[in-house]
Amino acid sequence: MSDNLVIAIDAMGGDNSPRVVIEGLVEASHKNPDVRFLLFGDESKVKPLLNKYPRLKDKCELRHSPEVVHNEDKPSQVIRNRNTSMAMAIDAVRRGEAKAIVSAGNTGALMAISKLSLKTIQKIHRPAIVSIMPHINGRYVMLDLGANTECDAINLAEFALMGNIVAKHALGIERPRVGLLNIGSEDMKGKDEIKQAAQIIKNSHMNIDFVGFVEPHDLPNGKADVVVSDGFTGNIALKSIEGTAKLIMTMIKKSVKSSLLALLALPLLVGVKVKLKKRMDPRLYNGAMFIGLNGLSVKSHGGTDAVGYAVAVGNAIKLVRQDFVATIRDELEHVDLDELSQEIIYDAY
Amino acid sequence: MSDNLVIAIDAMGGDNSPRVVIEGLVEASHKNPDVRFLLFGDESKVKPLLNKYPRLKDKCELRHSPEVVHNEDKPSQVIRNRNTSMAMAIDAVRRGEAKAIVSAGNTGALMAISKLSLKTIQKIHRPAIVSIMPHINGRYVMLDLGANTECDAINLAEFALMGNIVAKHALGIERPRVGLLNIGSEDMKGKDEIKQAAQIIKNSHMNIDFVGFVEPHDLPNGKADVVVSDGFTGNIALKSIEGTAKLIMTMIKKSVKSSLLALLALPLLVGVKVKLKKRMDPRLYNGAMFIGLNGLSVKSHGGTDAVGYAVAVGNAIKLVRQDFVATIRDELEHVDLDELSQEIIYDAY
Repeated sequence: MSDNLVIAIDAMGGDNSPRVVIEGLVEASHKNPDVRFLLFGDESKVKPLLNKYPRLKDKCELRHSPEVVHNEDKPSQVIRNRNTSMAMAIDAVRRGEAKAIVSAGNTGALMAISKLSLKTIQKIHRPAIVSIMPHINGRYVMLDLGANTECDAINLAEFALMGNIVAKHALGIERPRVGLLNIGSEDMKGKDEIKQAAQIIKNSHMNIDFVGFVEPHDLPNGKADVVVSDGFTGNIALKSIEGTAKLIMTMIKKSVKSSLLALLALPLLVGVKVKLKKRMDPRLYNGAMFIGLNGLSVKSHGGTDAVGYAVAVGNAIKLVRQDFVATIRDELEHVDLDELSQEIIYDAY
Repeated sequence: MSDNLVIAIDAMGGDNSPRVVIEGLVEASHKNPDVRFLLFGDESKVKPLLNKYPRLKDKCELRHSPEVVHNEDKPSQVIRNRNTSMAMAIDAVRRGEAKAIVSAGNTGALMAISKLSLKTIQKIHRPAIVSIMPHINGRYVMLDLGANTECDAINLAEFALMGNIVAKHALGIERPRVGLLNIGSEDMKGKDEIKQAAQIIKNSHMNIDFVGFVEPHDLPNGKADVVVSDGFTGNIALKSIEGTAKLIMTMIKKSVKSSLLALLALPLLVGVKVKLKKRMDPRLYNGAMFIGLNGLSVKSHGGTDAVGYAVAVGNAIKLVRQDFVATIRDELEHVDLDELSQEIIYDAY
């Protein structure tokens, strides 16, 4: 399988695995016919499904894994177990057999095993969780969404560098505008590490279009293509956005249902519904990418369907096509963030 | 004016002052006929307006202030100026002439002058900014929304105590459910100060219905009546919520406008629109309250109208009616958060 781009697949993770995984791969493979998949899972369950899709089967190699990481398992319990489909799939990336691993399984375990097995890229201190989000005219990249509760200025600068590359490769934006998430756009606002990160990014030789601080209400307007924060802040913003979107949609549905006139209007609104769904469909934004490691680890939502799973796999493919890990290494050759940060922090006193 | 409840008013702050201020007071006074207002502003501008509303005029005392804090003024530039309508109104609270001050002016200046002039309540270390927010079945209290970028466990516990009182008085909830905003509901999730705050609240003799950690996507479901966080996190969540609500409404409008069928449906949707507006109207959630000081300082949105301004004044009145400051002092008599926090932090090692 060495000539083609290979993605390792944990076929057992997720609510309806391995069915949704295989159906998702059918779609992903259709869009990316030159990609091969290395599947890990219970042979007795996965093989019959693969047999239903002979074209996909040609692109796959299935390896039996005797165990499965369950959603209830604590990361600490499963991190040393090498016999799970998840661990075996990650190990395929470590050994260089695959460039990325996709799993719809236990998030904490996927993070823990990925970190332990793949290790961070040289010169990168911390991995980050990245997602792609919708804004009014397009999409943006957001990180970190929860890998690191606390971050220093160097971590944030590294996230900016990595997020810039994700936006280029996954969104196809030639020169992404990169912003730091903050509670004000003025220079003196926010936490010290954010202010220092701004200095580091400005003074580094990173080739980044840095647009300064962005506030959460700027995100829906597309003010930045890459939004950088620590994992606690990013997770808070992400869950606030998701919760609010759900609340409003529920309120609208409730109001429509309680009005006879509005119910009469429903058939006329089909077009609006289709359009909104196209833009807001969470399946189209599926896949949290775990970056900064020697290999890409992608977490698909556990409850997604084939369409969502294919989106997660598709994003992984886009990033590895341009050899994401090597690109990060190249960019870091030109800059020494550690040295730069020491200068800037000394300057502040 | 000593027999009645008195609210000090900065008549000059806000985009359309003093007109909106006076119109808002007409409404607030109508709902609270026993409240009196002590107005500070440019006499030549405020007096003619008051003359238009003789009933309100009877409830007001107007004092001339020669200067105004502008929106562009930096807090550091105006903090020592005692001749502005804002500073004079705050000073009325300091001297005990009024129990609360309402201003639609420069937020940073209002905070800075309020802090300097009113000082924190004894035993309270930090003031907090509170707002009232909508959830699917009602409203909740959220704090801190930006007064303190970084908070320790004691600050958070104090916010919980104060937020509990706000929910009781402003929302009329007998036993508010109080939660700490976090990125997970499990005990081990999040930052150290949040975990320690949970311990302090549980072990204190604060009479609080503590529901543990709440995540941002729980807020729209009304999982807690009081949501506590540091000011950075709270501000990020607030602006994420506001930005997303705006994005979705814009997307819906855009989709409706681009569909002829949907345009035909519009008349049938008037009822839905009215209902949504009633629940989501930002004017109904106007007024960020600055609490923890010896006196209440309320910031009305600068661009609101009379309805919004009246809401801000109404919230202030509800809190001071039950002598908010004295209630906080009473509750703190039973607990020594400092001592408690030392025990808990020692226990952790």
